[in-house]
Amino acid sequence: MKPIKKRLLTPGPTMVPERVLEALSRPTLYHRSPEFKEIFLETRKLLKEVMRTEGEPLILTSSGTGAMEAAVANLFEPGDSAVVVVGGKFGQRWEELCRVHGVHPVVVSVEWGKAVDLKDVERALSENPGVKGVLVQICETSTGTVHDVRGIGELLKNFPEALLIADGITAYGVYDIPTDEWGIDVAITGSQKALMTPPGLAVITLNERAVNRLVESPKTYYFNLKKELKQQQKGQTAYTTATNLVVALNEALKMIVEEGVESVARRHSLLAEATRAGVKALGLELLSNSPANGVTAVLSPEGVNGQDVVKVARERYGITIAGGQEHLKGKIFRLSHMGYVDQFDVLTGLEVVELALKELGYDRFNFGDSVKAAMEVFYSSNL
Amino acid sequence: MKPIKKRLLTPGPTMVPERVLEALSRPTLYHRSPEFKEIFLETRKLLKEVMRTEGEPLILTSSGTGAMEAAVANLFEPGDSAVVVVGGKFGQRWEELCRVHGVHPVVVSVEWGKAVDLKDVERALSENPGVKGVLVQICETSTGTVHDVRGIGELLKNFPEALLIADGITAYGVYDIPTDEWGIDVAITGSQKALMTPPGLAVITLNERAVNRLVESPKTYYFNLKKELKQQQKGQTAYTTATNLVVALNEALKMIVEEGVESVARRHSLLAEATRAGVKALGLELLSNSPANGVTAVLSPEGVNGQDVVKVARERYGITIAGGQEHLKGKIFRLSHMGYVDQFDVLTGLEVVELALKELGYDRFNFGDSVKAAMEVFYSSNL
Repeated sequence: MKPIKKRLLTPGPTMVPERVLEALSRPTLYHRSPEFKEIFLETRKLLKEVMRTEGEPLILTSSGTGAMEAAVANLFEPGDSAVVVVGGKFGQRWEELCRVHGVHPVVVSVEWGKAVDLKDVERALSENPGVKGVLVQICETSTGTVHDVRGIGELLKNFPEALLIADGITAYGVYDIPTDEWGIDVAITGSQKALMTPPGLAVITLNERAVNRLVESPKTYYFNLKKELKQQQKGQTAYTTATNLVVALNEALKMIVEEGVESVARRHSLLAEATRAGVKALGLELLSNSPANGVTAVLSPEGVNGQDVVKVARERYGITIAGGQEHLKGKIFRLSHMGYVDQFDVLTGLEVVELALKELGYDRFNFGDSVKAAMEVFYSSNL
Repeated sequence: MKPIKKRLLTPGPTMVPERVLEALSRPTLYHRSPEFKEIFLETRKLLKEVMRTEGEPLILTSSGTGAMEAAVANLFEPGDSAVVVVGGKFGQRWEELCRVHGVHPVVVSVEWGKAVDLKDVERALSENPGVKGVLVQICETSTGTVHDVRGIGELLKNFPEALLIADGITAYGVYDIPTDEWGIDVAITGSQKALMTPPGLAVITLNERAVNRLVESPKTYYFNLKKELKQQQKGQTAYTTATNLVVALNEALKMIVEEGVESVARRHSLLAEATRAGVKALGLELLSNSPANGVTAVLSPEGVNGQDVVKVARERYGITIAGGQEHLKGKIFRLSHMGYVDQFDVLTGLEVVELALKELGYDRFNFGDSVKAAMEVFYSSNL
């Protein structure tokens, strides 16, 4: 049977609800109109609610990487040092951003798939007095690993000079993260992950400490956060924002608030648990020792190239899952369950994995094994 | 009568065709999927056709300002000099971008509303040997003025070291610009102007000379053009692109190619001519001595604040036109006729100007005077 439907089970872009697509396709608004200003200010308010912060959310027209660059370029002076947790592709990105902007990265290297050991972060901070910030992912998407950012926040009480800058691109909307309570000074996210909106917008929040640390003349014009802050407090942006995407994000955030941030987090926790149970029932192992709730990275069984699983899923079944990146390419595949995803989507994802693995010669399971395990998790959850 | 329809007659964002909005709202694609790659490569090809260049168009997820920053950060080394034509808000932006990136701006200052005198550009080049580029707007949107970029291209034959870097954000899709023939090495445009797509994408094209000048380690990570070029030639992007917007842009470019780039330019020329005839028939004057075909800047008559014209048009009639910026605020209003605009839209724009002016006390005309003048232009054009 040839696929007639396309399904998107990648860790971003993710599936976008019909309601959000409808909002996206409304006639374009003028970015300086009172009508748009109102939507923009409401969107910022909704972001504060979803991200649980009293800080200032700034909406940028860029991918999440743009917001990461904005953080590095606006919160550090060249010559400053920052502790950088590097346990995957996005940790590497922090490190690369530091180098471009003349920030000295004190790298805490973590085996890909492992969560960072808080003792290593503490050691890096102790051995490098005067460090101005810690750069970390809440979820390292490339390995499907969640780091203990709350723990890092605790640690930082003893290092008041260091800002906690957390890339939550695949964490916000997956977890219920009390940003302020955890001591996250700067939180970053993107539209195209659990926020259920097409790609093109990034968000960076700044608490008061972070606002006070914004440098006067950053070496970036487009990502000048001082200028953005001044504008966005008035419902404006420094440069033309992606108005249709903002209207879509507004709608998506309303959906999250309607479902309830806590409920959304419980749903993701359950989707992840069921996925993990499913793949284990096939005799497979997870890459991560601290698996994230937004995306599950699965070690491809011996003799099966993870890229082939992705290929079969897409070409034969119309379902897009993700492979591994860098040295994990071929060794893993990743099932995302982030955003506009329910239990049947998770079961579909497991089914396609079963079908692809059978075709690729791995057959230490019977059809339906992963589905059974996942359904049992769902059924007993009472959610 | 209360307005029940909204009409957008601003110089960006502009009205988006229903067909493009439909494309925008198609289910989100994975940016690394073969399906998206094909669309992306086709979009790049369409851009080459519309922009008439054999250079490399790079699509960036940002406003046009992002592409301007990319040009300055990737084509100059700190300490280089560039001639900058400053005759409005966007000329100023070039100058500011130079300062952020350590490029010395040799400013050719032009009265706002005037086109640059080529002799002044030539003098700046002669007096500053070793200048590495000329930064100019094809249309200076803030004043509705078109500069003679073709002439600058001619001049530069005697200054082979200098790249011609042209901001065509409100020029491409308005004019039929033979980019390569005019000697434009780097051309910039944005999605939300005459390209009839919502805001969020910018385009920068590089010819071979420009590609060879890309610096190895630009002081920007998100806008690293060397990295983008390598990816985009394969139909990829360095970071997640705004996939829905790319699909929409693809559709809009197809519409332009179907209508024909030359026909599109003739349409804009006529819309502009009719607008100019209309406002003159009301006894009003244009700001510009070299009026652009995408937007007409009109001097507000004595005793009438241009911002009030904008306000009445929007609040009473649901029609958004633009005011003046910086020191022109209050002194002008701007009618855009760029992109998805036909003769009836132009007539509507003139009508609302008539209505607003009457209400604001300027009555040296009879209702319909501007409409008559514009209709005569349209009728006699045989277009």
